[in-house]
Formats: sequence, C-alpha cells, structure tokens
Amino acid sequence: MPQYKLSYFNLMGRAEPMRLMFAYAGVAYEDHRIEGQQWAELKPKTPNGQLPVLQIDGKEELSQSMAISHYLSKKFGLDGKDDWESAKVREAIETMSDVKQKLRVTEQDPEKKAAIVKALEHDTVEPYLARLAATLKKNGSGFLVGSKPTEIDFHLFHAFNYWQQSKQYTEALNKHSEIQTFLKKFENLPGIKSWLEKRPKTSM
Amino acid sequence: MPQYKLSYFNLMGRAEPMRLMFAYAGVAYEDHRIEGQQWAELKPKTPNGQLPVLQIDGKEELSQSMAISHYLSKKFGLDGKDDWESAKVREAIETMSDVKQKLRVTEQDPEKKAAIVKALEHDTVEPYLARLAATLKKNGSGFLVGSKPTEIDFHLFHAFNYWQQSKQYTEALNKHSEIQTFLKKFENLPGIKSWLEKRPKTSM
Repeated sequence: MPQYKLSYFNLMGRAEPMRLMFAYAGVAYEDHRIEGQQWAELKPKTPNGQLPVLQIDGKEELSQSMAISHYLSKKFGLDGKDDWESAKVREAIETMSDVKQKLRVTEQDPEKKAAIVKALEHDTVEPYLARLAATLKKNGSGFLVGSKPTEIDFHLFHAFNYWQQSKQYTEALNKHSEIQTFLKKFENLPGIKSWLEKRPKTSM
Repeated sequence: MPQYKLSYFNLMGRAEPMRLMFAYAGVAYEDHRIEGQQWAELKPKTPNGQLPVLQIDGKEELSQSMAISHYLSKKFGLDGKDDWESAKVREAIETMSDVKQKLRVTEQDPEKKAAIVKALEHDTVEPYLARLAATLKKNGSGFLVGSKPTEIDFHLFHAFNYWQQSKQYTEALNKHSEIQTFLKKFENLPGIKSWLEKRPKTSM
C-alpha cells in the first residue's frame, strides 16, 4: 500500500469525506492538519495554492478535493461496479456540487441572511432531499447507487452530518425516513463510528 | 457500439466538448438540438430538469455535463493511460471549473461590466493561462496530461476556441506560444477540423 499524506486545515471542510474513506477502507494515512501560520509558508509549494493536497509516497502530489476524492474512490473500490454505476455516481456528485454552490450565502446582515437561508431551505434543500429520498427508495440498498457504498455516499453523509452538527436544515433532513436510514446505515459501516468518535472536534 | 443520443439546446455551451469527442473518436451519435418550445415539454422528463442529457440505446439516461464528459472519455480512451493520469486530468478539470465560475459576470451596467471583465482578465485569466502554458511546456507532448489527448484537452480547446470566436481574452491567449501550439495541434486531430467546419453556427 502506498504512503498517503492528506494535508488540509484543522477543519472537516473539503477533506472530511476523504478521511471517512480512509476510515472505511482501513487504510493508514497521515492526517496532516495545517495551522494558519504554517499555511503561508506551504501555500507557494502546493500545486494550486489550495488545500487539500494528497501526497503519495512522499513525492506525487494531487490537489483539488474532488480529484483526490475520485482517485481514492477508485483505489478503495468505491467507484461503483462498472462504468455505468461510476457515471451515476458522478452525476450525483455534480448535482450535489450545484446544490452546495446555491447554498453559499455571502449576505452579512443577520436578518437578511436568515430570510435567504429560509428561502434556500424551501426552494433548494427540500426539493433536493426529496429527489435523493426517492432515489434511495428506488435503489433499495440503503446507498445511493448500486448495492454498496460509493464515493457519493461519503459526501452526502458528511454534508448531512455537518448540517446536523451545525443545526442547519435539520427539519428538512428529518422529513425523509430514507435519509435517516441512510445516515444510520452509513454510520454503522466498518471504521466509520470509531472515526466519528475519535476525530478532532472542529466547528466546520 | 451503443446508440448514443446527446440532447442539448441549439448552442455549443456545455455540450460542445462532448460533440468534439464524438468527432475525434469517429463515433456516430444523434446530435439532438432542442428548440425553446420543445424544452418546456421535455424538461420534466429529464433526470434533473437540465440539459445536456446522454441517452444510450434508447433507454439509459445520464445528465450533468461533466458526468457525460467523463463517461464518454472512458469509452473513447480519453481518460489517461492509468489512474494517476486520470487523476491529473480531473485535477485540471476541477481547476478549469473554478476559473469558469470566477469568470461568470452578472453585472448588467456596461461600464461597470467592462471594468469587472478587465480585472478578471488580469487577476484570473492571465495567471491561469500562464500556469497552463507552463504545464504544456513541461509535459512536452502538446497536450496537457500524458502523451495523448485527454478529456481536459477537449474542454480547454472548446473554451479557447469560444473565447477567440467571441473576442474575449484573445490578448491573454496570444501571449503564450504553448497555447497557440496546443490549439493548432488539437485542431489537426482526426475529425476535429471537419466538425469545426460543418457544425451549426451558433453564437454561444
């Protein structure tokens, strides 16, 4: 097995789905967490001036979270059973990215922000979760694509787990029994619960 | 070979990189172009309410342009020679997506818009093209990753070709001989020039 080093800030953020993959796959890696002042020094040495970065065997470096996610998914058998399942996983990942982008709120005024978040919950989160719940129901395995966990499940689990932790969209999440079942099933996969218990506690 | 049907509007937009892939691979497909009033009828029948959609053998349907792009790339041998090249292709695609997102300008006022576009050219397009030119130079094959055309080259070619056609960022493009060489080399790949000549002329 290669030596993996995953560098990111001391946050869940864009690295957490990959940390969940390492936990599930039972693959050892260096969970390298960079503090503010180290970052200024490291930034010009990264491929893209961005984190996360995955380093392999102390040399090859890969940036872009979704490139790292997909690379590890292939290595860990999380890319679906064939090209078609892999394509459906990617379709779901792109759709999730679209939704996450819509949910980015830059408004600073607390009252205006609350109104925007409420509208987003109704117009974006609820229809998205309803479609996901319908897909989970139709697929029937408890996971989104095929019979086993795939890349998209790690991203969905992390997003929903973070929403629960930060008390966002919890009402919308609780509406769908399929999503609650998914969260329970995912949490009970090998390696996941112990990672959730032992991971550094961070607010995002 | 399966029967492919690629549905999109009568535009280049998000479907054109895939049309270039079909042209290069020499694979027959239905280039289904939907007019405004057909779209209202079709929209609720698509997987995601969005185009493009790839239909295979009259049944399986895939949405999300980047999922379609990657699926066809694998089928047509455009995904790099191994998992590492494939990861570097994805890294470059994600970086391009970040840049394209930054370049979306919603400002309506023509004077303010011109100032924003000028700042974007300087702060976003020029550094991006400089990094791409350096990667092309280092890689040495004329393509961005490995020794043969891959998925990212189809997206880069289309973006640059569109910038030239719409007279955007042409000065920045012309600064880099590596990019000019890439454009010429790509245009001369099998199937590409004849597609560029015969494709429907649209403004975007």
